[in-house]
Amino acid sequence: MKRVRVGVAGATGYTGMELIRILKNHPNVEITFLSSRKTVGMNLKEIRPFIDLELTLEPLDVDRVVERCDLLFTAIPSGAFTISKDLVKKGVKLIDLGADFRFDDPAIHDEWYENKIENYGELKRVYGLPEVNRDEIKKADVVGNPGCYPTSVIIPLYPILREKMITENRIVIDSKSGTSGAGHNPREDLLFSEMEENLRAYRVLNHRHVPEMEQELSKIFGKDLRVHFTPHILPMTRGILSTIYLKTKFSCREEIYRIFMDYYSEEKFVRILKEGYPSTKWVRGTNNIMIGFELDEEDGTLVVLSVIDNLIKGASGQAVQNMNILFDLPEDAGLNLPSLYP
Amino acid sequence: MKRVRVGVAGATGYTGMELIRILKNHPNVEITFLSSRKTVGMNLKEIRPFIDLELTLEPLDVDRVVERCDLLFTAIPSGAFTISKDLVKKGVKLIDLGADFRFDDPAIHDEWYENKIENYGELKRVYGLPEVNRDEIKKADVVGNPGCYPTSVIIPLYPILREKMITENRIVIDSKSGTSGAGHNPREDLLFSEMEENLRAYRVLNHRHVPEMEQELSKIFGKDLRVHFTPHILPMTRGILSTIYLKTKFSCREEIYRIFMDYYSEEKFVRILKEGYPSTKWVRGTNNIMIGFELDEEDGTLVVLSVIDNLIKGASGQAVQNMNILFDLPEDAGLNLPSLYP
Amino acid sequence: MKRVRVGVAGATGYTGMELIRILKNHPNVEITFLSSRKTVGMNLKEIRPFIDLELTLEPLDVDRVVERCDLLFTAIPSGAFTISKDLVKKGVKLIDLGADFRFDDPAIHDEWYENKIENYGELKRVYGLPEVNRDEIKKADVVGNPGCYPTSVIIPLYPILREKMITENRIVIDSKSGTSGAGHNPREDLLFSEMEENLRAYRVLNHRHVPEMEQELSKIFGKDLRVHFTPHILPMTRGILSTIYLKTKFSCREEIYRIFMDYYSEEKFVRILKEGYPSTKWVRGTNNIMIGFELDEEDGTLVVLSVIDNLIKGASGQAVQNMNILFDLPEDAGLNLPSLYP
Amino acid sequence: MKRVRVGVAGATGYTGMELIRILKNHPNVEITFLSSRKTVGMNLKEIRPFIDLELTLEPLDVDRVVERCDLLFTAIPSGAFTISKDLVKKGVKLIDLGADFRFDDPAIHDEWYENKIENYGELKRVYGLPEVNRDEIKKADVVGNPGCYPTSVIIPLYPILREKMITENRIVIDSKSGTSGAGHNPREDLLFSEMEENLRAYRVLNHRHVPEMEQELSKIFGKDLRVHFTPHILPMTRGILSTIYLKTKFSCREEIYRIFMDYYSEEKFVRILKEGYPSTKWVRGTNNIMIGFELDEEDGTLVVLSVIDNLIKGASGQAVQNMNILFDLPEDAGLNLPSLYP
Repeated sequence: MKRVRVGVAGATGYTGMELIRILKNHPNVEITFLSSRKTVGMNLKEIRPFIDLELTLEPLDVDRVVERCDLLFTAIPSGAFTISKDLVKKGVKLIDLGADFRFDDPAIHDEWYENKIENYGELKRVYGLPEVNRDEIKKADVVGNPGCYPTSVIIPLYPILREKMITENRIVIDSKSGTSGAGHNPREDLLFSEMEENLRAYRVLNHRHVPEMEQELSKIFGKDLRVHFTPHILPMTRGILSTIYLKTKFSCREEIYRIFMDYYSEEKFVRILKEGYPSTKWVRGTNNIMIGFELDEEDGTLVVLSVIDNLIKGASGQAVQNMNILFDLPEDAGLNLPSLYP
Repeated sequence: MKRVRVGVAGATGYTGMELIRILKNHPNVEITFLSSRKTVGMNLKEIRPFIDLELTLEPLDVDRVVERCDLLFTAIPSGAFTISKDLVKKGVKLIDLGADFRFDDPAIHDEWYENKIENYGELKRVYGLPEVNRDEIKKADVVGNPGCYPTSVIIPLYPILREKMITENRIVIDSKSGTSGAGHNPREDLLFSEMEENLRAYRVLNHRHVPEMEQELSKIFGKDLRVHFTPHILPMTRGILSTIYLKTKFSCREEIYRIFMDYYSEEKFVRILKEGYPSTKWVRGTNNIMIGFELDEEDGTLVVLSVIDNLIKGASGQAVQNMNILFDLPEDAGLNLPSLYP
Repeated sequence: MKRVRVGVAGATGYTGMELIRILKNHPNVEITFLSSRKTVGMNLKEIRPFIDLELTLEPLDVDRVVERCDLLFTAIPSGAFTISKDLVKKGVKLIDLGADFRFDDPAIHDEWYENKIENYGELKRVYGLPEVNRDEIKKADVVGNPGCYPTSVIIPLYPILREKMITENRIVIDSKSGTSGAGHNPREDLLFSEMEENLRAYRVLNHRHVPEMEQELSKIFGKDLRVHFTPHILPMTRGILSTIYLKTKFSCREEIYRIFMDYYSEEKFVRILKEGYPSTKWVRGTNNIMIGFELDEEDGTLVVLSVIDNLIKGASGQAVQNMNILFDLPEDAGLNLPSLYP
Repeated sequence: MKRVRVGVAGATGYTGMELIRILKNHPNVEITFLSSRKTVGMNLKEIRPFIDLELTLEPLDVDRVVERCDLLFTAIPSGAFTISKDLVKKGVKLIDLGADFRFDDPAIHDEWYENKIENYGELKRVYGLPEVNRDEIKKADVVGNPGCYPTSVIIPLYPILREKMITENRIVIDSKSGTSGAGHNPREDLLFSEMEENLRAYRVLNHRHVPEMEQELSKIFGKDLRVHFTPHILPMTRGILSTIYLKTKFSCREEIYRIFMDYYSEEKFVRILKEGYPSTKWVRGTNNIMIGFELDEEDGTLVVLSVIDNLIKGASGQAVQNMNILFDLPEDAGLNLPSLYP
């Protein structure tokens, strides 16, 4: 059986750990390299005693990666770009869970993020949203794995925008995320005592996932689109629910359901609800996105609701899906993850 | 000192209990009557052992109320309307935490609720939102206490609509509520095992607080307004956060802050944040509403964020505020409730 | 590859759903029958939209089971006993997640449970705790799957009692359970609004898992043992932590660790911590039990701490482990479940 | 009306904030001084926007305190001892919420805590548990406010030990605490993502509240007592439940209830449950301790259950109770705090 030798940079963070959780049970994967900046030299099991993987955490060294890996996942704040050309030159593919490779225009990246992306040079780069860009992903050397919020937004909007069903190029997106999206670095405002019984918005109209969404949605639509985006954080660990408000030409529910099914009935990880609305718990632990909707038949206002597990379809699961595509494996290999209920 | 003799119908529910919690420490109130349909004859303390109030639960009998109360709070699913005329005729004021007295047009009530309101007859009825209708409340016999979502929406929109600052008469309202709004009757979908790590929308575009909001907002604005409203329920017991999206004429933050201060700087329970966004935990246990906002200066899109404790400013605290106005007491008597932090 | 045809009675409850979650991905299992008392005729997916299994819920009919199943799991309040003899006679094995088959003496069962177990007759019955009774399980027709609390208590005590290391035959057990142990039937005291920010004990010294623990612990010890057991329920969905207090002959930690390793180093689902204490989250979603301990070297008082996922090792996972033993499959087939972190 | 001028050192921590919450509404208190090490010069409201108190945070300077305060609460990690003699000499009373003044023997303090208490000198010091030491508190200059766990343990054991009803001088105490007891300093293991759906023990048999409990319990009993204590942390912000296991001479429940009532029927903050067990939510937001119990009539094993709000009766509320005693105010002044339900 085909085996891909895989490394994970940033192994002890939430997305790194989620990668390991998935890859350990993946039939075509061998984990051959783990790095973690702060805990070099320790065994993963000392830090995360619940994981049955006895591997030493190493420095993120290009030579080691080249020697041992066919593919490197980078789940690190920044630095993926720095090593990307060396890796690609030596035949290692790269899937970055950060933002280094999400933007067509590096200048937009640099405006919103601390690190600098001078130019992508000769890299065959792709925005890794399989439901939209599957064919490009197959040919890429470097995959910019999408952000969690953009994943929850672009998949449900793709059929509607492609079919030119909106009547106003301004979209209101109200998203709610669990706390794991903020990572595991200690912060007072993320303490249990602070977050329990608490809900708040942050970075209203000013989140760095906005340019990412606008780039992809505008490409799909063929014209510039504006997004008014408010993210919220709520007392829940995993899950994103995005509530999207659009002015459309639709006049009945059936029409909408049909378009969704036209695009997604064959997709392994997209579930369209004919009626009712999705709960985040239904996708917790899975690589699925579930989509529901409601139409105001009087004025065509459409409300689309999507849920994902932010650490899986919103990060590590989608990264593995991209790996499967890159290495010509079944797209759902290792991703047959049932939801944890209750 | 002035004493108001007060009864509570529906004492053992969440809003009934919250009324008792507040009224017990109110300097001008004596609780003289409690009713509860299912537990007649029991002592409140047998059912809710944490409350230091030894009162027997009685049937909701008009004669008893008339004999012992100056005011009755009705925190019951329906039936407030049935007894309202008898009570008012005999000099008892009524504050209803249900929906029987919220609508100017009883037909709209009847379209959305199970019970029927034939006509309000000679009752001096008012929609009891003090920040908007204070003068009318003073003269009323019967107060329709506002719904929780409408409270969180109408107070922040009042100055903006009154000043005619919107440019589109379609408002998107995305609200998130804790579970206590759904009451204490057992339901599988409200179990801890189901609600923890869960977030979902419900009654999208079709919640019965929509006609209530549209009625009040249209009156304030002077023209018909449409509301696109999506409520959500999240794993949190108390609190509502409403995120409101408007197209406006505003071109800078300062202008918005000034208008809010013009209307609300003297209000005891309204807090405007010059910057930053409010957290539900900041108002938990209080009668306050906190309001923050963000403006897209390019296109005038305004996002307003408001938080309340759904059981206090969204129900029982506001009812006590209405009582204070009705009986000419200081508006914050008994309502100096600090937030429970953390 | 070997295939076992399996039915689940009580499919829509929490343990039934957890069985299905595990069995669906089990390489040697085909789910051929589902029953659910209240929802006969519906498709499982209508009731639990997040599960990808299109099977109709049928009545619990012996003939259908005999025709289609090699094994029936019964995850139902009672009634497993009623059909057990018919099933066994016709060659169907039975694993009961209820209490019908846990007791050596049916009279003790009948004292603590509502239904009656007249006699076990000719059934080859076993108490299905693999770490203790593996050999008997292999030969059984009917397995009484252990209770969740007893599982968390008997596994850690087994080596200590077998080695006769205790000096007092009275054991204090203080257990804490998540809410999923109480099932999915609506109850006011299990609502999210009631359970969040709440912790309480229940059935102090009087829980029906006491006779089950005393039966098994006394057999292991060879003498009568008394258990003082207090269960608690806390605001968490999955997980049990049992804190066990014993007077022992031990004089140092190493001795204890060595005994645990002697018994359990080869066990697939038992993890002994050399130092530190286990967290429930480390086993959530897994079939593992993790055990830590601390010794008061002055007086030999030993505190043992164990954690399990109450729905997996405490119910459905252990049931599948028993199935694997019964059908001579690898004991961890289908049970390589990584913990969901965070 | 009598006014006490009060300062709070460590104002922005959880116990400091809770003191302010209570003192702000206390009829006999004026808050005249606030200190906070890290945020000197800022206004409290900038840091905690939900509190309506416009006071500047100052350095902890003895002269300022002497000039402006009759009493200083110290809610700081250490350092209370350093300034205590100067304050007392100049007529300022001190209530310390830390551990500097809890021990009769400073050497025991120094063994368990980082800072050093050389000798208490001429200070009139008391262990401030009003239900046990009320008369000594009246005469003290410096009050060592008890720890949260000891409060939850000593109050329920006091009558039983004083009456010499135990038959074994080894007591098992299994306590469970909310996260607020760990304070507001960021720590990875206290993040919401880590604590939700998590329960664990810590410092088993080795918590620094053990010597505090053993000191007080032994004094009450008149003989040395050993305590086997396991604290746990659970996904809940406020509340402690202690489950205490004792061997006693009792032969029936009534006897126990009678002794509890003999000691506590007049106490304002102690509630004895004749039957049933207390829930932490019943005391959340209050200064109450609720006590329930269960007896094994066969062997005299008694299980006592107590609940408190760790930040109130376990810290700041009890400190205010001590203040009321010190300044000859009604013991419940400012402490008529109803529980927040739900």
